[in-house]
Amino acid sequence: MHFLLDEDKIPTAWYNAVPDMAEPMQPPLHPGTREPVGPADLAPLFPMPLIEQEVTTAPWVDIPGEVIDILRLWRPTPLIRATRLEKALGTPARIYYKDESVSPAGSHKPNTAVPQAFYNKVGGTLRIATETGAGQWGSALAFACAQYDLDCKVYMVRASYKQKPYRRMLMETWGAEVVASPVDDPDHPGSLGGAISDAVRDAVSRDDTHYSLGSVLNHVLLHQTIIGVEAKEQLAMAGETRPDVVIGSCGGGSNLGGIALPYMTDAAVRLLAVEPASCPTLTGGRFEYDFGDVAGMTPLLPMYTLGHDFVPPSIHAGGLRYHGDSPIISALVKSGRMEAVAYPQAKTFEAAILFARTEGKLPAPETGHAIMGAIDEAKAATDAGEERVILFNYSGHGFLDLQAYDDYKYGRLEGA
Amino acid sequence: MHFLLDEDKIPTAWYNAVPDMAEPMQPPLHPGTREPVGPADLAPLFPMPLIEQEVTTAPWVDIPGEVIDILRLWRPTPLIRATRLEKALGTPARIYYKDESVSPAGSHKPNTAVPQAFYNKVGGTLRIATETGAGQWGSALAFACAQYDLDCKVYMVRASYKQKPYRRMLMETWGAEVVASPVDDPDHPGSLGGAISDAVRDAVSRDDTHYSLGSVLNHVLLHQTIIGVEAKEQLAMAGETRPDVVIGSCGGGSNLGGIALPYMTDAAVRLLAVEPASCPTLTGGRFEYDFGDVAGMTPLLPMYTLGHDFVPPSIHAGGLRYHGDSPIISALVKSGRMEAVAYPQAKTFEAAILFARTEGKLPAPETGHAIMGAIDEAKAATDAGEERVILFNYSGHGFLDLQAYDDYKYGRLEGA
Repeated sequence: MHFLLDEDKIPTAWYNAVPDMAEPMQPPLHPGTREPVGPADLAPLFPMPLIEQEVTTAPWVDIPGEVIDILRLWRPTPLIRATRLEKALGTPARIYYKDESVSPAGSHKPNTAVPQAFYNKVGGTLRIATETGAGQWGSALAFACAQYDLDCKVYMVRASYKQKPYRRMLMETWGAEVVASPVDDPDHPGSLGGAISDAVRDAVSRDDTHYSLGSVLNHVLLHQTIIGVEAKEQLAMAGETRPDVVIGSCGGGSNLGGIALPYMTDAAVRLLAVEPASCPTLTGGRFEYDFGDVAGMTPLLPMYTLGHDFVPPSIHAGGLRYHGDSPIISALVKSGRMEAVAYPQAKTFEAAILFARTEGKLPAPETGHAIMGAIDEAKAATDAGEERVILFNYSGHGFLDLQAYDDYKYGRLEGA
Repeated sequence: MHFLLDEDKIPTAWYNAVPDMAEPMQPPLHPGTREPVGPADLAPLFPMPLIEQEVTTAPWVDIPGEVIDILRLWRPTPLIRATRLEKALGTPARIYYKDESVSPAGSHKPNTAVPQAFYNKVGGTLRIATETGAGQWGSALAFACAQYDLDCKVYMVRASYKQKPYRRMLMETWGAEVVASPVDDPDHPGSLGGAISDAVRDAVSRDDTHYSLGSVLNHVLLHQTIIGVEAKEQLAMAGETRPDVVIGSCGGGSNLGGIALPYMTDAAVRLLAVEPASCPTLTGGRFEYDFGDVAGMTPLLPMYTLGHDFVPPSIHAGGLRYHGDSPIISALVKSGRMEAVAYPQAKTFEAAILFARTEGKLPAPETGHAIMGAIDEAKAATDAGEERVILFNYSGHGFLDLQAYDDYKYGRLEGA
């Protein structure tokens, strides 16, 4: 069952979690001085409106009309009740998912790529540099830059550049220039940290260029809250007062934050992060200041981390292979407002395949984690004999991840 | 701009073009006797309700509730006005597209795969065999069989099996068994005709198995008319009286028929088929009785054909590489009710990339043909200074066709 919003119901403001946090957010620290960073420190990387959004305490931030004009290409996204999955599970729970896979790039990532490109465009930026691991973020930014006629340079981790050519081709079709990273060592397989270094170096070395990040930061989660704001209205259309639990997979935390933050002030709603057992930042990491990248070039962020030199195994859910977490998500878990659970990779593929065979759609491996979380919550509802309402974020489709399904089917999965 | 139908507005009947044809349809002929085929001839291949739909003259055919229950996983599909494409073209035309890419398999094909699987299920079939070239049809049937717990065996042209592993993986994820065809010669690259032979041989040799075809036949086009029936209602929502022209790419003719047939009785609406210059059945073929397959095992159909032994070049729009056309489409072109145009491959990629950079979505190469047709019609409206209304079928996405875009970008396209 689909619950659709007309396009004139697209939200006109983003929800800001910062003023509603139980305790004030700790500031990011300069990597050299370890003092709180100021706007001037960030100006070489980001346009001023994004720097302001990073620190604002306004409860809502208006979405510019020029951004809504692009978001409207695929938003509002559908809220769908997974009745066939419910039936297969024999659960009294009602399972809803917000389908972010319908965006041009196939995931939630364009929700922030579009405003980031917009603020750069109006600020006079001609070119944006970024990094991408498996390619989801790079494709979203390439799409967004095409809409505003901005040049886009993507530093893609060399191993992915070689193994996942389809993502490179998608970025190029939208007009981006894609190079393998590290650029200075053609024999090195690369890493996300190294690609961040390449992109930051590019951005600070050119006056016409800014840098762009696809997760972790406050302004990125702010942009993603459009997901949860829409979902609230659609759940009401479905006749539900509130969800009992809201679930998202968690890498850096942006798709989880997007669906969960608009519910954080309602104490009756549980919030649940699902992460891979092989990169268990929230369930196995320490809460402390750490760098966002391997090389230690970024500000220090207060977050759950496995250490910025942690090298996660090469699981297929590339979007969940990050050593840290968004400071907002980290603070919510630390305060007990948000729960976290970790699953081994094989269980998440089992869940994704059950979803594909009942609901039809093929999920991204990252999304398989959220589905596994929803299935376990549905089973808990069955055990309790309760009609619980479960909402999860369907963050992306798996059409460009089919090799992962093949590796699962034929027993070639790496990592746990 | 999106025009969305609530799911209780999903059509409850398919439109049948046959009674509205200017002249009675000529019957298919038995390949051996050259006499009109009867139901008994087709019974080893298809369940009786599909055989009845193949020849019915009822103006509308009810869609079973159990079929609607599955179609509702993605239908009604959106009708979208391509305002950003219009702006890029500087045209006074209003361009609308019906987005069939949102189905689980990524194209219009599940519209017929689902009812075909359903009628087989209720008729007691346990297993369906089919062929697939590039893999769109095989994936659609694999998805449909998963919904009704039917076994599915797909004979995939060996060259595609090797070059397009993602499609094979998608079919397997939905539970289908996929083998390379021809099965009896592992060194042969295969052909669609050969794969049809493998699938038909499988179906007739087993009591528990039927055969299924994804285009060309009357009942397939019947099932696809749900596209045009929805589009009519959505265009009315958009405030349009009627389209001036309705456009679809044409291989066997099912996506074109799906959107165009519901408009055929309105003489004010032009109908336009777009085909590849390298396989120009409607613009360069002869209208005559010909076999549906290379081996001459199928009934003879009255259609435009390049000859059943015609071998089209290996263009990327694999779904348009067919030597013939649906008898219904052929009769409409022959009578002058439908127009046809052929484009060289490179022009259709140019159109597809313009679409991706303005409207965001990445089209399948087949769909690029319909987009090119829409762009030329928009330019004609510009030249005439007229606000024409253009409707085309966005038959599928291109996420699994990215190699084609890469070949275009780097000058490696084969065929004209």
